[in-house]
Amino acid sequence: MTLPWPLIGTPLAEVLTPMPVIDEDRLEANIARAQGFMDAQGLAFRPHIKTHKIIEVARAQIAAGAVGINCQKLTEAEVFAEAGFDDILITYNILGAAKLAGLRDLNARVARLTVVADSETTVAGLAAAFASGKPLAVLVECDTGGGRCGVQTPAEAAALAIKIAEAPGLRFQGLLTYPSVGGAAAVEGFLQATMALLAARGIDCPVRSNGGSPDLWQANLVPSATEHRAGTYVYNDRSMVRAGECGAQDLAMHVLATVVSRPTPTRAVLDAGSKALTSDLLGFSDFGEIEGLAGARIVSLSEEHAVVDLSACSGALPEVGDQVRVIPNHTCVVSNLFERMVFHRGGRVTRVEDVAARGTVW
Amino acid sequence: MTLPWPLIGTPLAEVLTPMPVIDEDRLEANIARAQGFMDAQGLAFRPHIKTHKIIEVARAQIAAGAVGINCQKLTEAEVFAEAGFDDILITYNILGAAKLAGLRDLNARVARLTVVADSETTVAGLAAAFASGKPLAVLVECDTGGGRCGVQTPAEAAALAIKIAEAPGLRFQGLLTYPSVGGAAAVEGFLQATMALLAARGIDCPVRSNGGSPDLWQANLVPSATEHRAGTYVYNDRSMVRAGECGAQDLAMHVLATVVSRPTPTRAVLDAGSKALTSDLLGFSDFGEIEGLAGARIVSLSEEHAVVDLSACSGALPEVGDQVRVIPNHTCVVSNLFERMVFHRGGRVTRVEDVAARGTVW
Repeated sequence: MTLPWPLIGTPLAEVLTPMPVIDEDRLEANIARAQGFMDAQGLAFRPHIKTHKIIEVARAQIAAGAVGINCQKLTEAEVFAEAGFDDILITYNILGAAKLAGLRDLNARVARLTVVADSETTVAGLAAAFASGKPLAVLVECDTGGGRCGVQTPAEAAALAIKIAEAPGLRFQGLLTYPSVGGAAAVEGFLQATMALLAARGIDCPVRSNGGSPDLWQANLVPSATEHRAGTYVYNDRSMVRAGECGAQDLAMHVLATVVSRPTPTRAVLDAGSKALTSDLLGFSDFGEIEGLAGARIVSLSEEHAVVDLSACSGALPEVGDQVRVIPNHTCVVSNLFERMVFHRGGRVTRVEDVAARGTVW
Repeated sequence: MTLPWPLIGTPLAEVLTPMPVIDEDRLEANIARAQGFMDAQGLAFRPHIKTHKIIEVARAQIAAGAVGINCQKLTEAEVFAEAGFDDILITYNILGAAKLAGLRDLNARVARLTVVADSETTVAGLAAAFASGKPLAVLVECDTGGGRCGVQTPAEAAALAIKIAEAPGLRFQGLLTYPSVGGAAAVEGFLQATMALLAARGIDCPVRSNGGSPDLWQANLVPSATEHRAGTYVYNDRSMVRAGECGAQDLAMHVLATVVSRPTPTRAVLDAGSKALTSDLLGFSDFGEIEGLAGARIVSLSEEHAVVDLSACSGALPEVGDQVRVIPNHTCVVSNLFERMVFHRGGRVTRVEDVAARGTVW
């Protein structure tokens, strides 16, 4: 049986492809850089672990100074709770008897667990599930321009906060948003207005949680925020370079791929398809960037093939059997395709970690 | 710990979401319909197991009359070989020492193993790896308009066939193509021309393998084909309905999702994001179809959220906590996100199968 996972010390050139690989030096630098910035701004930093889903990477983020972690779903949080993480924020509306029962178990085990809510229905479900036992901390999720979840106005936010505060088993902990890129002013305005309404009612609002990797270095533009959440910064990807959040030298994840075919002078086929890169375009017109092959465009993906248009390339072109390094458009979703993740330094494999929370979508 | 996988007998309304679920009756009908058509045309049928990656589903396809199975990568084939499948075609250029060693092991274990090649480099690697032991059967992969892998002309195909035939450890078994949709005439022309060149050289060409689910019911339009390969037909998806390959009543896979937010009168958010549906658009302008909610459009996906635009809907709209059924744009990639797959009949769970070959991209 072919073993896809390489041994420690294996040169990258000998790693079976397709394989995402993480540069240890760049990973360390990304963790330190973001934490250092947040420390300098006086902001608590709460990394979103969805980008890596790996226990040891989250431990490194905590060791650097993160206040806790952000998970996106109940079952993702359960994996990290099992590993001993004691401050977990789940940024999701949790609904339904089974998930609420799981949330009760989790709240009993995790020292500081917080969830979000953006509707009376969600709050009513939480209130009923936590009518007894250790109270649950809840943030009101606010839509400050992101256009996804969240109450739409400061008045709605205050009203929902009051509902949470009135429930015996819930504690209103504050506000949270996942903003639109470049939307700092909208976030600040929404938070200030909501805090004013709450203050007029004598309701404390200790946490104001802002988020996003694209605006990570502008986190200080929201003075009312007490913490910042970000996931993608830890590995970075093509979309982060485009957003100006990092440079190419900060890209910690590459997907190693092999050229399996050169059917024509201007076409190559790689063995990294949508089951290694995903079809996430994130506004790009192609499916990834090939390092060191300027002009090459990954124009289509099948599940196990990437078709590359070489017509705009000059210079040496890769041949059948050559290994290339692909910069993915979106790193978080690549992590979710693999059971394990390969790390490297100095061109050799250093460790292979379990992607412990792979597939935890419930 | 919350258990995402439901017990047998669970009503679908109680299944944790997001969850892909397979309708047993429709699955059976899809398997029988395609096999019956191929039998009537006198074509061997070789299902591509990448769509389901499940041992029991492949067994059902063989039981219905399939001649063998099609896998896309070496490690995918290894899973099915381990389960006893004795006729396996791997439609991939296999390169590099480690993969070729794995291929040697596989060829010793599988009664009838076949691979493809589209370059002299690939053939040379195979020839060297199989210089001793049981010979390996090889098909020449031909590009008949699909624009992915494959030799570009009948003359190239014949030349490569000769290279294969000349290698002591290889057996030239025939030709294979993955055509462009509606490209039957191009396939037939390419096969005929290549066969003529080979016949002139006294080289037999026993297998002519055509493929694709979109043109499954037009497989007879390529009279020179001896077998047809198809994967997607077994579950079907939105792209198959659009291609006219099936009707809505033949859709065996749905992704169950819950409405977790109704932030505005025209917006809903579901808990099925790209980590449950993938971002595969396949030419659609939205990320899936919600059954029974005409006019609803899944306009954006985050990893764990689907944002739905309800502005074109009339009639009752779903509320927070309601379950909906999403028809995915592309079924094959959804299978690859989940460790297990839930099956149902009469509104209740019948079994939960391991997606045994999930993540086998090497």
